[in-house]
Amino acid sequence: MRNDQLAELGQQLRVDAVRAADAAGSGHPTSSMSAADLAAVLLAHHLRYDFDQPDHPGNDRLIFSKGHASPLLYALYRVAGAIDDEELLSFRRLDSRLEGHPTPRLPWVDVATGSLGQGLPVGVGMALAGKRLDQIPYRVWVLAGDSEMAEGSVWEAVEHAAYEHLDNLTLIIDVNRLGQRGPTRHGWDLEAYARRLGAFGWHTIEIDGHDVVAVDAALKEAGSTVGQPTAIIARTRKGRGVAEVEDREGMHGKPLPDAAAAIEELGGPRFIRVDVHKPPAAKVLHTALGGPLSLPAFEVGESVATRTAFGKALAALGSARSDVVALDGEVGDSTRTEYFAKVHPSRFFECYIAEQELVGTAVGMQARGYVPYASTFAAFLTRAHDFIRMAAVSRAAINLVGSHAGVAIGQDGPSQMGLEDLAMFRALHGSTVLYPCDANQTARLVAAMAELPGVSYLRTSRGNMPVIYGPDEEFPVGGSKVLRSSDRDRVTVVAGGVTVHEAVRAADLLGQEGIDVRIVDLYSVKPADAVTLQEAADATGCLLTVEDHRPEGGIGDAVAEAFTDGRPMPRLVRLGVRNMPGSATPEEQLHMSGIDAESIAAAVRLLVEQAVVR
Amino acid sequence: MRNDQLAELGQQLRVDAVRAADAAGSGHPTSSMSAADLAAVLLAHHLRYDFDQPDHPGNDRLIFSKGHASPLLYALYRVAGAIDDEELLSFRRLDSRLEGHPTPRLPWVDVATGSLGQGLPVGVGMALAGKRLDQIPYRVWVLAGDSEMAEGSVWEAVEHAAYEHLDNLTLIIDVNRLGQRGPTRHGWDLEAYARRLGAFGWHTIEIDGHDVVAVDAALKEAGSTVGQPTAIIARTRKGRGVAEVEDREGMHGKPLPDAAAAIEELGGPRFIRVDVHKPPAAKVLHTALGGPLSLPAFEVGESVATRTAFGKALAALGSARSDVVALDGEVGDSTRTEYFAKVHPSRFFECYIAEQELVGTAVGMQARGYVPYASTFAAFLTRAHDFIRMAAVSRAAINLVGSHAGVAIGQDGPSQMGLEDLAMFRALHGSTVLYPCDANQTARLVAAMAELPGVSYLRTSRGNMPVIYGPDEEFPVGGSKVLRSSDRDRVTVVAGGVTVHEAVRAADLLGQEGIDVRIVDLYSVKPADAVTLQEAADATGCLLTVEDHRPEGGIGDAVAEAFTDGRPMPRLVRLGVRNMPGSATPEEQLHMSGIDAESIAAAVRLLVEQAVVR
Repeated sequence: MRNDQLAELGQQLRVDAVRAADAAGSGHPTSSMSAADLAAVLLAHHLRYDFDQPDHPGNDRLIFSKGHASPLLYALYRVAGAIDDEELLSFRRLDSRLEGHPTPRLPWVDVATGSLGQGLPVGVGMALAGKRLDQIPYRVWVLAGDSEMAEGSVWEAVEHAAYEHLDNLTLIIDVNRLGQRGPTRHGWDLEAYARRLGAFGWHTIEIDGHDVVAVDAALKEAGSTVGQPTAIIARTRKGRGVAEVEDREGMHGKPLPDAAAAIEELGGPRFIRVDVHKPPAAKVLHTALGGPLSLPAFEVGESVATRTAFGKALAALGSARSDVVALDGEVGDSTRTEYFAKVHPSRFFECYIAEQELVGTAVGMQARGYVPYASTFAAFLTRAHDFIRMAAVSRAAINLVGSHAGVAIGQDGPSQMGLEDLAMFRALHGSTVLYPCDANQTARLVAAMAELPGVSYLRTSRGNMPVIYGPDEEFPVGGSKVLRSSDRDRVTVVAGGVTVHEAVRAADLLGQEGIDVRIVDLYSVKPADAVTLQEAADATGCLLTVEDHRPEGGIGDAVAEAFTDGRPMPRLVRLGVRNMPGSATPEEQLHMSGIDAESIAAAVRLLVEQAVVR
Repeated sequence: MRNDQLAELGQQLRVDAVRAADAAGSGHPTSSMSAADLAAVLLAHHLRYDFDQPDHPGNDRLIFSKGHASPLLYALYRVAGAIDDEELLSFRRLDSRLEGHPTPRLPWVDVATGSLGQGLPVGVGMALAGKRLDQIPYRVWVLAGDSEMAEGSVWEAVEHAAYEHLDNLTLIIDVNRLGQRGPTRHGWDLEAYARRLGAFGWHTIEIDGHDVVAVDAALKEAGSTVGQPTAIIARTRKGRGVAEVEDREGMHGKPLPDAAAAIEELGGPRFIRVDVHKPPAAKVLHTALGGPLSLPAFEVGESVATRTAFGKALAALGSARSDVVALDGEVGDSTRTEYFAKVHPSRFFECYIAEQELVGTAVGMQARGYVPYASTFAAFLTRAHDFIRMAAVSRAAINLVGSHAGVAIGQDGPSQMGLEDLAMFRALHGSTVLYPCDANQTARLVAAMAELPGVSYLRTSRGNMPVIYGPDEEFPVGGSKVLRSSDRDRVTVVAGGVTVHEAVRAADLLGQEGIDVRIVDLYSVKPADAVTLQEAADATGCLLTVEDHRPEGGIGDAVAEAFTDGRPMPRLVRLGVRNMPGSATPEEQLHMSGIDAESIAAAVRLLVEQAVVR
């Protein structure tokens, strides 16, 4: 395309952004207009993408990290012939796929954006997959705003990308100098960004983002740079092309005051179509089919930590299917992903202590068809909460494994204890939350996760625990195990993980006193096994939940939720971690928090004595 | 102190770290040994701290961001005479204040550490307070590990500190080249760190961290550098001084294999005492006492967004007391902290789009006696979840305000909707969770938050809502309001925020059909008003919760928790956001998610028709 045509294309994108936001009555046209020339040249000359085959493995990946520039993205789709003008103007309407911020409801959008600073971490995952797994020469293009460069997650990704020499990754920064509520820290000081990125090992190019010749040259240079990722740092003007809003504060996130005049000022609507370059033929290498799955088997009575069982099961799963990858937050010796790393080093990714990048990379890899297991301490997954939340919006299938759950870790103290993780994961849309209490159960659940949609979470424990289930036992997601049951049960104890063993010990103590209790191992916290819980309620009338987690948001709440269909409720009593733990042995911790066998037994006795239960 | 004495002091710290970990049977001696010389010189020559007066406003602040080096910190305390040898050896024992990672159970520890990458963000808050609020020349010293430099939160703080010219802040990086599971990305490449920090505008000094002369000179240079924060990048050896562990992998986080031999190799125990330099006299400027509090008053029937009421109330609160500060995540025009910024610019802190830094700064400021209100979209507070979790461990009193709650925001779509925030905040130890539905209620709660301990959260809404309470009405934390009540009520609807208004509308619809419902406005989600809920349960037998939040972890779970004392349960039914929203108007969103008046009325009708309720 000639330069004047490229400039015309930029104007078309601007007009369409104005039109879409005007039709919607909301949206971010000015943030779209600043990046229009960058996007025009990218689409016309550099992107390789088959819009008829969004699943083509050779397609480049385009991520609008500045997701609020969605009108620009949708305007590009119209240029490419992927959507028509009528759909463009459905922007932000109920039932339109053109949401305020892009989501994978559109087949050309891999991941949802709109929480700033997430595009590059996800892009790193895609670029890593391209380099180290797919071996397909697709490029990953990330369009970012200048404001979001303040997000730490961006710098986690910048470090990761440089360290991995991801020369298939290009970051395009739309430096329009204005954030939502005013100027950014660095304004139009392109060199401020270049200095920082350069120090991390990136190749940087500073340009005028409205000069299509410069843009074209920069994108070409990015494509031919070897051994380093490239950042194109483009000076632009927010609202470019319309004097009433151009480079003016207070114009963020709203339609233009006078859209008709603006469209006229921009030269009116245009209908340029671009035949986007098609990608070369490419073949997917990974496969869910491999050798037969031979999960590790543990003997009943053996003492094994569930984190160890996780590591061994993941290694086995990796042998059975080549689409499984493991990601570590520099604690692989603790989470036991090191077992996987030893057997499958090419599918193991060290993300160092950067949990947002850890999860972002996982999201990027699942978008390329892989089945990622990302793991760190349960406590530190809270670091990536916003990424996990956005993964749910992305309809991403990722598996997260948090080790060192609860006070049972012992002496390291509260900073290392996952005590809020169940609450975090339960509240996610479409999530699955699993919490095994023994090694064979863990192994089965690790394998089951590979087939689940959405965000799946496995909570593992630091300390050894006795194996209580045989290796052939099955543990369907959504199920539970009734470990003790009789027609004399006066209370049902619902437990998970470490407290299952405490509950069993409590049942032994109580049995000596003639008090029978039912025990439910709620290994699937979400979905929870409502039927079994309801049966237990009918039989015993009272459910006592006990969990190594805060009283809010975990097993106690999950059990209560099983009775929210309007049916008569059983009596519900809950034990959880209500204190602020310090350092102590695991046994002392469980006791101090009131969730050990003695505490459970005491609670049951109280319920029986107070005749709360029959 | 002479150089040979400084070196001896370093050895003492090493020996004590080895002894403490040996006594505990766990801990991180090798990570302490690498930083021993740095700590020795800092304590002996540069720190100004009165250990008898930890509240002295002139005290320097010392933050061990690498909190696992706690044995070193406690060894310092012994040198300073703050603890005795017996207490040192109580490390990690039940009831010892010397926890595995430092917490404010010790009077000399301002904030808990142990989740890496948090010390610098918190230190920036303290240094900002010193510069812009306290006007006291204390220095903030942050000791960090090299591994944690991978955390994005560190780079948020690095950017913030340079931008604010915090020359009272020194970062000491203990570059021992070994992380938990192996080498770091940059090993001993000090220049890699210097290049990055320098690019962000920091003064950097590279030294041999075991050369006490070099350490002394570097600390002095840091103290005399003007206009820039300084980073001392120190090459050290993990486990320094004991050949069996020095610079060896696999020696992280465990006592030395042969402590007795190690102590001998280090020259045996020493009992050097240092009289730490006292700070100059200093006076606290801020005060809780100011003018009378004149909260904004809104007229019943007026249409006001609770976010607007928050902004106005916060500005008023800032006029009444000079210890109130406001922090913004570059969305002050949306959260309405801009009202505060206009009236109190000197106490307004723009943290840009860096939510971890936003919360870290707030934690640092509350440690200096301020009452911070940090605000961004509710959805984006998830970005800082780990910081908020650690704030609870720090016993920090911070106020967090999340705007744009729920699907009611409308067209911007799910990335911008706070739908998991109540779950996140409810599960925190000692937290308070408030969710007002009108402007006067909001104003009262904003004022109440200033007096609360721990992490307090206020959830505000984007859209205008009718004012339903008079300006003189009181809203105690832990209370609720019964908006409709009669002896014919068949169901109790428990709502919060926007759904209160939907519930009122539903009651009107149902009233026309002869169905009376009780309405409880649960503005205090945690603690919840168990008494009122229990009374409503006794009266109506069935509680229907309705919330603009995921069904898990929010109002539904809070209400269920009010019945976990063993009493008979009412029937509980919940309405919450079970779909994945797209873009639509606020009204359409509430309807699509089944939490609008029509949905509530339909649910009540069903309950009545099914004779679930009497």
